[in-house]
Formats: sequence, C-alpha cells, structure tokens
Amino acid sequence: MSVQRGRPVVTLLTDYGVTDEFVGVLHGVIARISPDAHVIDLTHGVARHDIRGGAMVLAQSLPYMPVGVHLAVVDPTVGGDRRAVALLLRDGRMLVGPDNGLLWPAAQAAGGVERAVEISRSRWRLEPVSATFHGRDIFAPVTAHLAAGAQLETAGEPLDAAMLVQLQTPRAWVEAGSLVVTINTADRFGNLQLAATLADLAEIGPSLGDEVQLRLPSGETHAARHVRTFSDVDEGGLLLFEDSAQKLALGFNHGSAMSRLGLRAGDELRITLARDS
Amino acid sequence: MSVQRGRPVVTLLTDYGVTDEFVGVLHGVIARISPDAHVIDLTHGVARHDIRGGAMVLAQSLPYMPVGVHLAVVDPTVGGDRRAVALLLRDGRMLVGPDNGLLWPAAQAAGGVERAVEISRSRWRLEPVSATFHGRDIFAPVTAHLAAGAQLETAGEPLDAAMLVQLQTPRAWVEAGSLVVTINTADRFGNLQLAATLADLAEIGPSLGDEVQLRLPSGETHAARHVRTFSDVDEGGLLLFEDSAQKLALGFNHGSAMSRLGLRAGDELRITLARDS
Amino acid sequence: MSVQRGRPVVTLLTDYGVTDEFVGVLHGVIARISPDAHVIDLTHGVARHDIRGGAMVLAQSLPYMPVGVHLAVVDPTVGGDRRAVALLLRDGRMLVGPDNGLLWPAAQAAGGVERAVEISRSRWRLEPVSATFHGRDIFAPVTAHLAAGAQLETAGEPLDAAMLVQLQTPRAWVEAGSLVVTINTADRFGNLQLAATLADLAEIGPSLGDEVQLRLPSGETHAARHVRTFSDVDEGGLLLFEDSAQKLALGFNHGSAMSRLGLRAGDELRITLARDS
Repeated sequence: MSVQRGRPVVTLLTDYGVTDEFVGVLHGVIARISPDAHVIDLTHGVARHDIRGGAMVLAQSLPYMPVGVHLAVVDPTVGGDRRAVALLLRDGRMLVGPDNGLLWPAAQAAGGVERAVEISRSRWRLEPVSATFHGRDIFAPVTAHLAAGAQLETAGEPLDAAMLVQLQTPRAWVEAGSLVVTINTADRFGNLQLAATLADLAEIGPSLGDEVQLRLPSGETHAARHVRTFSDVDEGGLLLFEDSAQKLALGFNHGSAMSRLGLRAGDELRITLARDS
Repeated sequence: MSVQRGRPVVTLLTDYGVTDEFVGVLHGVIARISPDAHVIDLTHGVARHDIRGGAMVLAQSLPYMPVGVHLAVVDPTVGGDRRAVALLLRDGRMLVGPDNGLLWPAAQAAGGVERAVEISRSRWRLEPVSATFHGRDIFAPVTAHLAAGAQLETAGEPLDAAMLVQLQTPRAWVEAGSLVVTINTADRFGNLQLAATLADLAEIGPSLGDEVQLRLPSGETHAARHVRTFSDVDEGGLLLFEDSAQKLALGFNHGSAMSRLGLRAGDELRITLARDS
Repeated sequence: MSVQRGRPVVTLLTDYGVTDEFVGVLHGVIARISPDAHVIDLTHGVARHDIRGGAMVLAQSLPYMPVGVHLAVVDPTVGGDRRAVALLLRDGRMLVGPDNGLLWPAAQAAGGVERAVEISRSRWRLEPVSATFHGRDIFAPVTAHLAAGAQLETAGEPLDAAMLVQLQTPRAWVEAGSLVVTINTADRFGNLQLAATLADLAEIGPSLGDEVQLRLPSGETHAARHVRTFSDVDEGGLLLFEDSAQKLALGFNHGSAMSRLGLRAGDELRITLARDS
C-alpha cells in the first residue's frame, strides 16, 4: 500500500518574490482545498512583470516536474480584461494562469493544448475577488480543485484554444558570417542564456576550445572561449557554453557576464569565429 | 480512506530571512518531533524587528490558512525577560511566539484568546536553550508537540490572558475635510497599505475615478487617482485602491509608490478630494 | 497506523539562491523519483562558491535535522574533474555532494565515514548530464534513489574514504595574552561567528559583563562587552556572546557587526581583556 504515491502535485511559478506573504497565502489557500497536494515552489523570483522570462523558465523546467497542475502568475494587467485560463495539455499536465502568453511556450513544448477553459468567473473563486491578487482569489483555488481531482470543464467556461494569446520566441540567424542572437534571460549569477543552440553555433564553425568574438549593440567587442564549463577558462575569462537547458549561454568565471558585458534580456549580439582560432 | 486529510498544519512567520539556515533549522526541529506535520512558510521576510508589520501580516493572512498551530517570531528582545507564550484562540487556532504584541491583532481577529500558557520553561524546550535562537529551542518544539496533538496546558504554566502585551493599531480619522491615515506596511513592490478602509474614504467623498490629493509629512502634495486596479491608470500614475486585505493602499503603475513618495511604514498622510474632481 | 511516520527525509543545502528556478528543479527531480520524500530546504543562501561557509552551516545544522539523505552543493569546479560522492556516516545519515571539502566537517561531527561511493557515472544520473548543473543531473537523482531505499553501493563505484578531500577548520590560540580567532561566517544580520568557544575565551579571563578589546587586522581597536544576549547591551553596542551553535560571536545591538567593524569571513582578530574590567 502506498498512500503517498497518488498524492497530487502542484507547482508554483510567480513574480511575487519571497519577501512578502503572497506565496505563503497561495500555499494556505491550496492546503485548505486540497490538503493532500504536494506543492513545489518552482520559483517566485521571476523579474516583476517579465512575462517572457517567466514563460522561458516554465517551458524549460516543466519536463523536470512530476505531471500535475502547474500554476504560473506573472500578471502585469491583473484586474484588467485579460482572460484567466486553465489548460489541459496533450501530455496530461494542466496549466493555470493569466492568458498573456506566459503559458504559451510551455504548452507548445508539451505538444499543444487539448482543452481550455476561461476561469475568471469560476465557481471556485474566493469571494470577494480582489482587483489585485487573483493568485489568491482565482488561480490558487482553481489549481487546488483540479489537483483534488475536479474535471477541467467544471473550472469555468469552454474556450477555443485558438483564441489563446501566443508568445513568439526569438530565433538566431546567420548574417555575413556572424550568428545573430537575442539574450533570453539572466540568472542570479549573471549568466546570460541566448536564444540559440549548439546547432546554431555550428553554422559559423567554432569547435570546443576555439575563441569567438562577441559584438555588442554598442559596437564594443569582447573575446570569449567556446568551452564546456567554467573551469575550462581562467578566472576572469568569458566563456560561451551549452547551459543546462541545452541553450547557448555566456558566462564569466568567478563573476557576472551580465555586469561584465553590460547586457540584459532582449539585447541582441553577434558572434563570429575569431580570426586566429 | 484518506490518511493525509488529518495531517496537522503548522505555519511559520518570522523575520529570519531566507539567506541563513534559521528557517531550515525550524523545519528540521519540527519534523523530528511531528513528522506528519504539513509546514507552510507564511513568510520569513518581515523586516527585522518589525513587530507591528509582522502582526499585521499575521492577522491578515491567517484566515487563508488551514486551522493549525501558527508560529510567529519577531523577537528583538530574545533572551531578555519578555514572556514566551502559546495561545488557544476562540476559533480553534493556536499561536506560539514571544509575548510582545506580535500575536495580539491575530488573536483579536479570531475572537480573542481562550487560554494562554507561558512556555519559557516548557518541558519541550531543547537544552541547552541558547540566548539568541528561541525559535529553534523553544517555539519550534512547542509548536511541533502541539501539532502532534499535545494539550495546550502541558506546554507550560497557565497565564492570565489579560496579562498579554497588547498592540494598538492606528486608525484613520477626518480632520478639516481630510482623511488622516497612517501607513501600515510596504510590500516588495513598494505598494503602501494604509490603516484605513473604503468606508473611511467614503467620509471625504471620492468615487471611483476621482482624483485625490495626498499631503505628505514634508508638506509636499501629489495627485492620485482613486481606482480599482493598476491598469486603470497610465504607466507612471499614482493610484489609491482597495488592496487584497480590503485596506486602502497607494500604488504606482510600473513602479514603487514607496520610492516615488519617499514614505515608509508609520508615516502619516492626509487625503483630500481634489477640487476639480 | 501511521503511514507518514516512515516518510524518508531529504535536506538540501546549496549556494543556488532563491531567485532562479534551480532549487525548484531539484525538488521536481526528487519528487519524480521519490514522491513520498519529505524535502527540507536547509538553506540555499550559502555565499556563491563559499565551500567553507557551507561546510560550517551543514555541520552545525545537521544535528537538528531528522536522519535522512542530506544533499549539499557548493561546487565552484562543477564539470571539472572533482569527484562526486555519496557517503554513509557512522550515525546513519547519508551525505551527497561534490568531494571538495564541503561534506567533511559534517562527516567528522557524525563520527566519520562508514562507506563512500563515487557517483559521477551513477546509473541514476539524468542523461544528457549537463556540464554546469550536476545538482539536477547527478546529485538530486542519487539523493532521491537513496531516500527511496536504494543501497549506497548501488549508487556508484566504491571509494576509499581516506581519499576524500578534507577541510581544515581554523582554531583559536592564545598569544601574548590575546585570543587570536578567525571569523567563520557572517549571517544576514551581520553577526560574525568566530572559530572559538567559551572555553577558548576563558583562557584570557573575561567573565560575563566584562569589557574586551578587539584588535582588527587594520590595527584599529574596538571595545565590546562579553554578555549573554543582545538586550544586555545598549542599542549601538558591540557584544561578544555565545551563539546558538555554541560558538563565540560578535554582534551589534540593532545593527550589523560586520558593517560596523568592516570584517568578513576568514579575517583574523585579537581579543584581549580590557584593562579596566
């Protein structure tokens, strides 16, 4: 007999931070409705209002989570007229959150949306619904009821999945021998994830150990070494490596590539094979 | 059969922060004594030594928590002669923490204290009791034993609830056509919660959509719009809204009202209906 | 019947911080393999790459944790040629992490290592193993399988415990009437833990209430009072006290001793009984 084995899993991703009680309140609301749920804090450190950054983290992390109900809230227009949705994906996961593109890349990575419902007026919302904390009043109770076994259809009104807000993600391309890439996200260590893979890099040629040149939007250039990991360059060296999400990334051994290069998410840069490599 | 359904709930609120191991040690101590307990971190981000702020958050959040044993530690005089207490409230919840006013508003909101005990010399404390970490040595073990089903009386010595330290909370009042209010707390987004409600605001007249004038302690004045939510004002606009705790609050769309106005908890300001509204 | 009583315990200590999704991903990986595990976040706030600080916190906190599988990752040379290990200690706990000294003081405090295995090529690692996130790809899955009941031997290849990297911890000594001590760690309040105990202090004489003189590396001197707790000195007073890990520590009532003295972990200072005490 294994009672725990069947414990439903809920994961939480927000931009609420860990200073205030907001995350604790989500946990409380869920525990009152679905006391058996195993609730995992995926992260609450998404930059405030950064829908794109939150969407990237959600899509890249979900494969490491047990199948469950996955709440995500980065919601700059809370209380406005954006939709609130719950989605059943083709791989069996459910997503709950605002319909502003945040859930889109994760849904695509899971093979797409099987069924969608609009939950702004869900029977499960907590009354009175506040204008500013839909995480507590709509998303958490809907998540908890779904985790407790309720059918998606009972959470709200049917919604055509084709109506969902889509989020386009940047791609890399080759131009005049350079790989042009956009910076996806920065982590707290200042590593910069690029919207590109090793396969993209292969188009301009460098092998492991080669030096590449980075041209920043300012026109400034920096040398970096294409290696496997931090310890493959000297302290204070820039490296271009494949990160744990299998994306290209820029790092700085014992420091922050973000500070060193003065770049941030959304910036574009050009990577070229250095002449002397 | 549902084994989990009966799992006791513990919640934690402290000013310990999440950088050090203090919170993890509370979890460990509780898990050793009451391995079945479901422990929810309400928040550990109360400003250091801010008894009033911690008390507000506890009182406002507890209704969203399952009934359980609620530990709260903001304890600037730890190791001094303040009492340590465990309280049974009239709504069935138990509170554990220092007797410095921190628990008072939550106890009042729950209908008052049914029974109280002094726990400084509880049989359950961990020896040797340190002078600086009563969370680990007194509050956590008492909380865990109560969560595991022990009777309140066995936790320490009886205490007359009339002896408990009380915490007065500020109120709003009308003076010469202005609503005079105190700032309760600031959240990490810089939203300022006021010690006042929509009913208080109604006394000076503004309706949704009206402009109000804020007079700061410095004499400086600012215009704000009384609206429902952030997206009802332009980016960079100040708003006066009802927050998720049903208190009035000042916000700044895409920014921090706290930084913008240079105010902090405890400051007083005057709100007047703007002439041209 | 108590199903929960037998729930395996896992604890996590890292330098990952709480801003990114790294910690959430560890939880997800563990929950997929060992859904019954009770996972306690000991801390994720170890200073980046601070092996010594992480080792101290692990050794001092483990006695407060239930016996379980204890993952620790502070891993500046991840992806390089340092070993990855799982250890069974003489007190029944298991440790999992990089073999860089991080686990050493905790293992010593538990009576030493009973058996060790090298896990870099564990059958349980997640493929493809990234070069930079061994927490996710090696340490978490090994931890989870051990928590789920697997034998240590099945986690990897046998390793002679005498081969493990050792971490020497500083000691205090008396020289010309002064106690010479090294600063172990600083907490988020700026309290400085010293690598010394009350017994060491007794060698130079001060009793509770006496004033001592601190000589900093810069030659600067400060007076502090040897007391039991913060409230025994005035606001703004420096105190020398026994902290909750039974180590000597320097504190500053209502402020940060670290900022006040301009010191940090690894610095050495000299403590002398003040003349007029």
